[in-house]
Amino acid sequence: MKYQSYLLTTALTAAMATGAVADELRDEAKEMFEPIPSTVPMQADNPISDVKIDLGKALFFDPRMSASGVFSCNSCHNLATGGDDNMPTSIGHGWQKGPRNSPTVLNAVFNIAQFWDGRADDLKAQAKGPVQAGVEMANTPDNVVATLNSMPQYVEWFKASFPGEAEPVSFDNFAKAIEVYEATLVTPAPFDAWLNGDDAALNDAQKAGLQLFMDKGCASCHNGVNLGGNGYYPFGLIEKPGADILPAGDKGRFAVTETADDEYVFRAAPLRNIDQTAPYFHSGLVWDLKVAVQIMGESQLGEDITDEEADQIVAFLGSLTGKLDPVVYPVLPAETANTPRPTGEVK
Amino acid sequence: MKYQSYLLTTALTAAMATGAVADELRDEAKEMFEPIPSTVPMQADNPISDVKIDLGKALFFDPRMSASGVFSCNSCHNLATGGDDNMPTSIGHGWQKGPRNSPTVLNAVFNIAQFWDGRADDLKAQAKGPVQAGVEMANTPDNVVATLNSMPQYVEWFKASFPGEAEPVSFDNFAKAIEVYEATLVTPAPFDAWLNGDDAALNDAQKAGLQLFMDKGCASCHNGVNLGGNGYYPFGLIEKPGADILPAGDKGRFAVTETADDEYVFRAAPLRNIDQTAPYFHSGLVWDLKVAVQIMGESQLGEDITDEEADQIVAFLGSLTGKLDPVVYPVLPAETANTPRPTGEVK
Repeated sequence: MKYQSYLLTTALTAAMATGAVADELRDEAKEMFEPIPSTVPMQADNPISDVKIDLGKALFFDPRMSASGVFSCNSCHNLATGGDDNMPTSIGHGWQKGPRNSPTVLNAVFNIAQFWDGRADDLKAQAKGPVQAGVEMANTPDNVVATLNSMPQYVEWFKASFPGEAEPVSFDNFAKAIEVYEATLVTPAPFDAWLNGDDAALNDAQKAGLQLFMDKGCASCHNGVNLGGNGYYPFGLIEKPGADILPAGDKGRFAVTETADDEYVFRAAPLRNIDQTAPYFHSGLVWDLKVAVQIMGESQLGEDITDEEADQIVAFLGSLTGKLDPVVYPVLPAETANTPRPTGEVK
Repeated sequence: MKYQSYLLTTALTAAMATGAVADELRDEAKEMFEPIPSTVPMQADNPISDVKIDLGKALFFDPRMSASGVFSCNSCHNLATGGDDNMPTSIGHGWQKGPRNSPTVLNAVFNIAQFWDGRADDLKAQAKGPVQAGVEMANTPDNVVATLNSMPQYVEWFKASFPGEAEPVSFDNFAKAIEVYEATLVTPAPFDAWLNGDDAALNDAQKAGLQLFMDKGCASCHNGVNLGGNGYYPFGLIEKPGADILPAGDKGRFAVTETADDEYVFRAAPLRNIDQTAPYFHSGLVWDLKVAVQIMGESQLGEDITDEEADQIVAFLGSLTGKLDPVVYPVLPAETANTPRPTGEVK
C-alpha cells in the first residue's frame, strides 16, 4: 500500500511537471505558429458564397478545362493524395514534364503568395497559370470560356455565383470560383488541437520534435499558420546543396524579381501534410522526409541534425497532417454540340 | 360554367385514356426492359462487404496503380462525367491513344461481358486489363502488388476485405475489390421510375420516343436492364457505315473468337446515361446523339429515321440518365520508402 501510494504521488508530480512544461512549450510555440481558423479565409475582391464554392469545386475537378480533356486542377493537386501528385515534377500535355514539384493545394490559402517563387499574388492569379501553361493543361482563356458557355448548367452556376455581372462567364470569374473553393481546402491537424490547448494531441516524441524545430532554427523560416509559405529564402543559405537537389538551371525567385539577391531564392515550403507529399523540394528529388530534414539543417542552418533528432522532428511534422472535410465528388454538366472538342495535339 | 365543366370532363376522359395507353406501353416495355434493382448485384466468387467496397473505391481512384502515377481507373471512367472521358479514344501512358472509345463504368455491372468486344467475362477480369495495357496504365501485376504492400493502410484494408486468406494483397484481389466497388455504380433514372409505375416520370415526347424505340426495332438489340450490353451484333447489319465511323482495321469480336461470322461484331452499346457520354460508337467519331440514332437506324435496321422521330427517341434516351449515389472522394494512404517510384518512361 505504501509503495503504491508513493508511486501515485510520483506520477502526479510528474504529470504536474509535464503540464507546466507543456504550457511553457505551448507559450513558446504560440509565438511562432498559429492554428487553422474555423472559418473560410476571406479573399480579396471575391466574396464567398456556397454556390461559388460548389462552382469552384466543379471547375477544380473538370478535365475539360484542359485542351486535351485529360487534366483537371485535381490531376496535379489531387485531394486524395495530400493535395499533390507524388511525382518529382508533374506530367502534363503531350507527356511533357513540368519544371518544378507540384505543391499541395491543401492550406495553400494561408501562403503569402503562390508557386515556389511566389509569382502569383493569390489563388485566383495562380489558377490562371497551369490552365494556360503549354506543358500543363495547354488551354487558352477563350477556349475555357467557350467550353463553359457551351454548357447551360455552367452558365447558370456562374450567374448565381456572380450576381448582377453583365458577363458572369469569364476567365477572371473562372479563377475566382476556383480560389474560393481552394480557400475551403484546409486540414486542421493534431498540432492545431494542441495549440488550442489539448495536451494529449501531441505525444512525447512530437513535443520533443517541436522543441528541436524551434531550438534549431527551423521555425525561423517555417512559421505562421502554414509553418512556411510566408517568406522567401535562399536555398543553401549556409551551404549550397548539390545539383541533384538544387539544379543550376532553376534560379527560383530571380526569374520574378530579376534581382541578384534573389538567385536560388524560393518561398519556404509550407509544412502542413508534409508526410503525405513526398517527394520534396522544388526539384522533387528527395523522397525521404528525414533526409529532407537533415539536408535543410545542413544547407539552411549549418546544423548537423542527428538521426535521433531528425526522427523527433519528423514525428512532430506528422502532427501537421490533418483532415479535410469530406469532399463529395462533383457531377459535371455534359458537353453539348457547341462544346469545343478536346485535342491532344502538341503545338 | 358549362364550358368549364365540359373542359373538365374532356380532361378527365383524356387522362383516363392516357392512363390506359400508358399501361399498354408499360406492359410492352416491361417485356423488353428491366428496372435497376435496389440492391448491389452479386458477383461470382466475390462476396460483397462494406470494407471491400471502400477498398475498391480507393483503388479505383488511385493514380499510383499506373506506372506513371498519372492515371487511375477514374481517369478514363470519370464518375464526374458520366463514367467515361468524353474523348473519341482515351489518352494513356506516354500520350498514346487507345484503340477504342472508353465505355462508361456506370451500370457496367449489368453488361453480359466487358469491353466493346466482350473479351472480359466480368468486371474483375476487365479491371486487370487497362492496368497492364502499355497504352493505358502501363503497369505490371508485380508492381501493383509491391505498391500496395508498401503502404500499411492498404495491407490492412486487404486483410479486412479478404479475411482468412493467406495472401490477401494480390492482383486477383485488387481486381475483385474494384469489381465490388464498380457493382455499386448504378444510376436509377426516370425510366426506372416509370417502369416501376410512376406515370409522370416520362413526358409525352419520351413516351413517344419509347414507342418508336420498340416499334422501329432498336429494342431488338438494346434491351434488358442496360438497354444493350447483353448481346453481340454486326455493326452494319443492313448497311455498313463508312470508315469514318467503322474503321476497317478494327474487326471487333473477331479478335476474340476468330470466327468469320464475328467480323465487325460488337457488343450492343448499353444506353443508360448515353446523353452524358458523347462521342459515340467504338470509334468515338460521332458527337451528336441524334446523328448516332439515325446512323443506327440506317445501318442496323434499314430504317430511315426522320428528324422528328430521332428527336423523340433522343428524348426517350434522356430518360435513361440517372443519378449515382453521392461519392465521397477517398483519402488514400501516403507512399513509404518502399513504394515503387512512378515512371513516365515509355518502353
